[in-house]
Amino acid sequence: MSTLQTGRVSPTEMASTRLTVNLTGLVTATFTPLTSEGELNLSVIGPYVDYLIKDQGVRNIFVNGTTGEGMSFSVEERKRVAEEWCLRAKNKMDNVIVHVGCLSLKDSKDLANHAVTVGANGIGVISPSFFKPKTADALRSYLKEVASAAPTLPFYYYHLPSYTGVNLLASDVCKGLETVIPTFSGVKFSGTDLMDFGQCVKYSQPNQSLFFGVDEQLLAALAFGANGAVGSLFNYLGSHFNKLLIAFAQGDLVRARTLQFKVQDLLAFASKYGFDVAVNKQLMSDLSGLSLGPPRLPLIPCPPETSAAVAQKYHQIFPPED
Amino acid sequence: MSTLQTGRVSPTEMASTRLTVNLTGLVTATFTPLTSEGELNLSVIGPYVDYLIKDQGVRNIFVNGTTGEGMSFSVEERKRVAEEWCLRAKNKMDNVIVHVGCLSLKDSKDLANHAVTVGANGIGVISPSFFKPKTADALRSYLKEVASAAPTLPFYYYHLPSYTGVNLLASDVCKGLETVIPTFSGVKFSGTDLMDFGQCVKYSQPNQSLFFGVDEQLLAALAFGANGAVGSLFNYLGSHFNKLLIAFAQGDLVRARTLQFKVQDLLAFASKYGFDVAVNKQLMSDLSGLSLGPPRLPLIPCPPETSAAVAQKYHQIFPPED
Amino acid sequence: MSTLQTGRVSPTEMASTRLTVNLTGLVTATFTPLTSEGELNLSVIGPYVDYLIKDQGVRNIFVNGTTGEGMSFSVEERKRVAEEWCLRAKNKMDNVIVHVGCLSLKDSKDLANHAVTVGANGIGVISPSFFKPKTADALRSYLKEVASAAPTLPFYYYHLPSYTGVNLLASDVCKGLETVIPTFSGVKFSGTDLMDFGQCVKYSQPNQSLFFGVDEQLLAALAFGANGAVGSLFNYLGSHFNKLLIAFAQGDLVRARTLQFKVQDLLAFASKYGFDVAVNKQLMSDLSGLSLGPPRLPLIPCPPETSAAVAQKYHQIFPPED
Amino acid sequence: MSTLQTGRVSPTEMASTRLTVNLTGLVTATFTPLTSEGELNLSVIGPYVDYLIKDQGVRNIFVNGTTGEGMSFSVEERKRVAEEWCLRAKNKMDNVIVHVGCLSLKDSKDLANHAVTVGANGIGVISPSFFKPKTADALRSYLKEVASAAPTLPFYYYHLPSYTGVNLLASDVCKGLETVIPTFSGVKFSGTDLMDFGQCVKYSQPNQSLFFGVDEQLLAALAFGANGAVGSLFNYLGSHFNKLLIAFAQGDLVRARTLQFKVQDLLAFASKYGFDVAVNKQLMSDLSGLSLGPPRLPLIPCPPETSAAVAQKYHQIFPPED
Repeated sequence: MSTLQTGRVSPTEMASTRLTVNLTGLVTATFTPLTSEGELNLSVIGPYVDYLIKDQGVRNIFVNGTTGEGMSFSVEERKRVAEEWCLRAKNKMDNVIVHVGCLSLKDSKDLANHAVTVGANGIGVISPSFFKPKTADALRSYLKEVASAAPTLPFYYYHLPSYTGVNLLASDVCKGLETVIPTFSGVKFSGTDLMDFGQCVKYSQPNQSLFFGVDEQLLAALAFGANGAVGSLFNYLGSHFNKLLIAFAQGDLVRARTLQFKVQDLLAFASKYGFDVAVNKQLMSDLSGLSLGPPRLPLIPCPPETSAAVAQKYHQIFPPED
Repeated sequence: MSTLQTGRVSPTEMASTRLTVNLTGLVTATFTPLTSEGELNLSVIGPYVDYLIKDQGVRNIFVNGTTGEGMSFSVEERKRVAEEWCLRAKNKMDNVIVHVGCLSLKDSKDLANHAVTVGANGIGVISPSFFKPKTADALRSYLKEVASAAPTLPFYYYHLPSYTGVNLLASDVCKGLETVIPTFSGVKFSGTDLMDFGQCVKYSQPNQSLFFGVDEQLLAALAFGANGAVGSLFNYLGSHFNKLLIAFAQGDLVRARTLQFKVQDLLAFASKYGFDVAVNKQLMSDLSGLSLGPPRLPLIPCPPETSAAVAQKYHQIFPPED
Repeated sequence: MSTLQTGRVSPTEMASTRLTVNLTGLVTATFTPLTSEGELNLSVIGPYVDYLIKDQGVRNIFVNGTTGEGMSFSVEERKRVAEEWCLRAKNKMDNVIVHVGCLSLKDSKDLANHAVTVGANGIGVISPSFFKPKTADALRSYLKEVASAAPTLPFYYYHLPSYTGVNLLASDVCKGLETVIPTFSGVKFSGTDLMDFGQCVKYSQPNQSLFFGVDEQLLAALAFGANGAVGSLFNYLGSHFNKLLIAFAQGDLVRARTLQFKVQDLLAFASKYGFDVAVNKQLMSDLSGLSLGPPRLPLIPCPPETSAAVAQKYHQIFPPED
Repeated sequence: MSTLQTGRVSPTEMASTRLTVNLTGLVTATFTPLTSEGELNLSVIGPYVDYLIKDQGVRNIFVNGTTGEGMSFSVEERKRVAEEWCLRAKNKMDNVIVHVGCLSLKDSKDLANHAVTVGANGIGVISPSFFKPKTADALRSYLKEVASAAPTLPFYYYHLPSYTGVNLLASDVCKGLETVIPTFSGVKFSGTDLMDFGQCVKYSQPNQSLFFGVDEQLLAALAFGANGAVGSLFNYLGSHFNKLLIAFAQGDLVRARTLQFKVQDLLAFASKYGFDVAVNKQLMSDLSGLSLGPPRLPLIPCPPETSAAVAQKYHQIFPPED
């Protein structure tokens, strides 16, 4: 019997992907299916939901985020995507979190309000990145405005310094944010500054979720107290990552590390090709059989040989029996 | 009689702000007036047009750009702003360039098409900056799509590396762009890499405009062959910069330098306070008497003492008789 | 009884600071004592050795590194410092690793050879940072040259991207380095890219040490298989970090996390003051009672009130009975 | 007859490379000749001096700087190089400026003192870049210490942000520096922030030299009042740049621009190959016939085909009759 103390969640909770009090486990950042002409292809979303549940064992999704190219779509398109996911996930998934961050506050509020109407289970908001907020207070004011448009939904701050270039510490943004935004429910921390993440964990409330968003370093964040993870790799490595969560929860760090290092091997290989959302999207089509289509400009379609090479590496590292 | 050869434009052209074949001289990047509640305050735009012409001697404007917080508004708001400027500038201004860049290609095309309908004289497009184009070709494909929605309007590429974080060379983006985008008419170069700017100049076509967008370094760009400038400082230093253009066109580099250094002194002072669009907007209200209101989040209003200190410095450097 | 598998080292090994086959546990990066006039004050080194052993429980040191301001001293000064540490640590410490990295290859070889003559137990080498090596191969060639001057000593690569600005992955530098440098014995990884660190661990040989050098994130690296740590905080938090190592080795992640978060709280506080080697050095003088003197230019002495404030926070977070 | 006012220097002065009151015109940053085994090859320096005077028309040199790989040599080697240049340039060159910047203050002082003894005409000092000075005052204190070791020599601050990563404004470092360092005689400004350069010019004393160090943007700096230039390209484009200086001094900006753009074309071509000091050094050997040898590690020798391709482009852009 293990004496390991993971602190925030019990082994059983950690291995589970079902929501109890607060959201835990794996949350898959979904791609947005497009037709070959680059228009929304909503018909793929239903099968996509079933695939995630059946093939990957994930029951929580994060839509219209970075992986979903949310920033590249119009407000109207984002609404249609969010609505379809909520519709198809109903009674199947545990949680649909809709990302509503934009450069324009009005647009974000519009999307937040829409998320309520379509039955989302929460909203996520990234910092605007053209005008970068100068202080944590400026960003908190912005986030508060967005949250006010969805007063009944759990609110998650989406911290993504590499894309936004925003240098504010997540811990400065989040500390005591529940007093400003009553629905504040946690952070999707997609950075690599684990001291900042550690401070987020330490000063969080018990009902807040600490999701880590850098899949290839998840084990480190688990050691620091992460509740779960939001990431794109769970689209095709969901069951693998569930094993990692279980190994960690059981105190088997050797196994957790082995599982984590396999993921790193895949990404180290893929990064030689310039692994971005476009490559990732094509790889997912190749691996899942779902037809996700091309990315939208300014992303450019991945050359078939690139995704094929990465897919081959995937199959080598993660053979069927694995 | 001066023997100075400035190359691209004659002294008379340079001093003029009227359009001849291609756009030259000063183009003011306008602020967007808001009410104290943060909503559009279109009623200020009419007086704003008159002020620019009468007090600053500028007859070309660039609306919904960085200075105008275009990225912070919804598509609908941007349309209303563009429409009002076009309406009020009619028969008064020479050119209204509408910036239509967005993160979403669909939104940009929508705005480009709208610019045609409201009688704009050109459109400007910045690179999307959340997903950064990886190659000049990717960006060119994006720009081409936007331009196709306004096939009758001159098209300007807006190069702004400090805000967008896009590392592509403007010269790589622009070289031969007229073969891809028939309406390609020039670049608003708001970077400090003068080698890149030099290459833009050298490989430009005669009917293309090379606008420099870093006001405090304009003299350097003039030496490299800039046709004119797009900037925010012309809101309250338009007549001063017109003198600089004239001094340069007359071959009086000593005077041009003296005028340029005064601008640098003002900015060096202002930068100690963190000079951003918010401070700049309040400063313009203070100096012009126009009521431009606050910026929109995530920008936060400038403390009154900050703009007052900068305004005082302005009056000291640029006394009325100057 | 714990079933935790830490993989590379057993709990007993991890808690131990003694060398077995390869170096494990805590390695303190020492400060270099100066007189108030800024000259070497070698007389402090003897008491410093005793203090580290008795008060902090550390038996391994890394001298003339970043903490020791090695780069700021002349070759002659560095030799005198290295010699004194080796002399005073003899029969008391387990390992004295001498950092011999310089901008000049000749100087590094000179220092490497000297390290042999004074009885050091290993050498560490950082990448030159003025001319940054463009490829891992270029850096490996450089390191090989340095190592050849100390063919009898274990060789450690010191990876410090934040100071050097060198963007090469440590895993690309280290993979198979034992075939190029027979004495290659491990890496001091002072970066925050844990995917890179994970790849270092995965592709390391059993006799190589994986030291982590970002003290405030050590727990994350332990989860990834770090053998130990090289850091400056062990100067006054050595016994605290030894508790952290023991907690981790015993599978008590809750306790390990609690101990790690205390360190983060101290650094979060200190970073508001601009925590650098100068502040750290004065803090060490304040906490240890050793007279380490000022830093050398271009570092400037820490204001007494700064180190006093940090020292007060230290005593608050780590009360004597802790 | 031109009415151009260049302000700081008359056309005659600008075209001249001879020193009058303060140093003006072109200063060539020299490479350091090595044998094929990588040791100093001092015998090449005599012919190098004659080549620069006869073939390139330059009479001022800057030795042991970035181009000269000063940072990669030991103090002893740097002394031998400086001595040889001073010896061979005597009665031939107008000025030999010896760069004495190091990471170690003691080494810099040692080199500064040595420069006096070998008859140098000035010293240049770059900021230390491992420990980056946090404030202009810290850097000024450092520079003061170095200058004090060569109290009879003109002192130049060498501003090179891209290599050092030091973000301090040169204008903040230099303003009033003559009150701290009586020998302060100017700046070698090798950055691209022309606002900062403009402030250096405006607040400089009449006896101080404002050298620009980004050769491909020199015309811009001349417009801002630069006295001259320190650069590596003058090794093989000295006579070309002298024509540029003359064209500028005569008020012929069209010609100056044409000459500047040719240089940019060469560098744009070369930069596709990763133009660094190693490539530059081999190119100089190819073009001059001098045998400069390889660079020292961590720079790696330039592949022959690379320098050959750049040399071919050079001959195409600058045909013999040009």
